[in-house]
Amino acid sequence: MGRWEPNARGRLEQAALDLFGERGFDATTVKEIAERAGLTERTFFRHFADKREVLFGSSPLRESLVTALDAGPDTAPPIDAIAAALRATAELLQERRELARRRQAIIDAHTELQERELIKLASLSSALAEALRRRGVAEPTASLAAEAGMAVFKIAFVRWINETNRQDLPELIQNALDELKAVTAGK
Amino acid sequence: MGRWEPNARGRLEQAALDLFGERGFDATTVKEIAERAGLTERTFFRHFADKREVLFGSSPLRESLVTALDAGPDTAPPIDAIAAALRATAELLQERRELARRRQAIIDAHTELQERELIKLASLSSALAEALRRRGVAEPTASLAAEAGMAVFKIAFVRWINETNRQDLPELIQNALDELKAVTAGK
Repeated sequence: MGRWEPNARGRLEQAALDLFGERGFDATTVKEIAERAGLTERTFFRHFADKREVLFGSSPLRESLVTALDAGPDTAPPIDAIAAALRATAELLQERRELARRRQAIIDAHTELQERELIKLASLSSALAEALRRRGVAEPTASLAAEAGMAVFKIAFVRWINETNRQDLPELIQNALDELKAVTAGK
Repeated sequence: MGRWEPNARGRLEQAALDLFGERGFDATTVKEIAERAGLTERTFFRHFADKREVLFGSSPLRESLVTALDAGPDTAPPIDAIAAALRATAELLQERRELARRRQAIIDAHTELQERELIKLASLSSALAEALRRRGVAEPTASLAAEAGMAVFKIAFVRWINETNRQDLPELIQNALDELKAVTAGK
C-alpha cells in the first residue's frame, strides 16, 4: 500500500496546477506531476484516477451544498434554502480563492475542460433540485430554484476569482441573489 | 454540385431520427441515413458535416432568440425582453414538437450527446447575455437575466415534449416564468 505521505493530495494538486499553468494541461504528464510534488506515480494514482481528476475530482461543492440543504428547516422558502446552502458552501471555499483562480485559468484555456466544467455544474444543479424535492418542494419549482441558485453561484464565483475583486464570496453571492430578484421582478 | 433534391434536408433529418431511434445513434451510419432518405451520401454531406450535426446543426433557436432580442424596444426591462424573445422562438418551434420529442429521446439515451446538448444550451445563454449587453444592459444583470431565461426555457421545453402534455410552448414558457418570479420572490 506504500507509506503514508504527509498531505500528498494537496502537494499533488499544487504541483499539477503549477505544471498545467506552465506547460498547458495536455503537455503535462502524471509522471511530471508526481516528480514535482516529490512523490511517486503510484501515490498519485492512490489519490486521482487521472490528471483531469485533479481539476474535477471530489469537489467539496456538491457535498456541502446538499448537506446544507438537507439540514435546513423544511419551512424555509426554496430560494432561501438554496441561498443558505450557497453561503455555507462559500464559507468553505473562501480559503481556496487562489487555487480556484488558477484552476479556472487552466479550464478557460482548454475547450474540453470547459465542457467538463459545464457537465459538473449541470450535475450540481440536478443535485440541488433533488435535495429540494426531498424537502417536499414540487416540480417545476425545485428545478427552477436549483437553476436560479446555480446561476447566482456561477456569477458570484467569476467575480470572486477576478484579480481585482476583494469582496468575499458569501457577500458576492448575496449581491448576485439580490440582483437576480431585481431582474426577475422586472427592474 | 449534384442536382437539387426537393426537401433533402428535411428527408435526411427524418431518416436520421428514425434510424437513431431504431438502432441507436452509434450504430447508425451516414450511408444508412442517405439510403433511408432515398438520397446519396454526397447529398447528406452537402447539408451536414456528420451525423451528430443532424441533431445539433443550424438550430433556429439561437438566431431566433438573438434576432428577437435585437429587434425589441430598448426600454423594456431585461427579463421582459428575454420573455418576449422566448415566446417568439416558441411560436417557431410549435410545429416541430414531434421532431423535438424524438430528438430529445435520442439525446437522453446517450451521454456524449447529453454533453453536447449542455454545451449548446450554455452557448445560447452566452448569446442571450451578449444581445442584452448590446442593448446597454450592464453586467451582472445581463448574464443573470440570460441564465434565468434559459432556465425558464429548459423547464418549459421538457414539459412541452412530455407525451401527456397538451399545452402550447409559449403558454408553458409564460407559466415557467411566472413560477420563477414567485420562486425568487421567496414564495
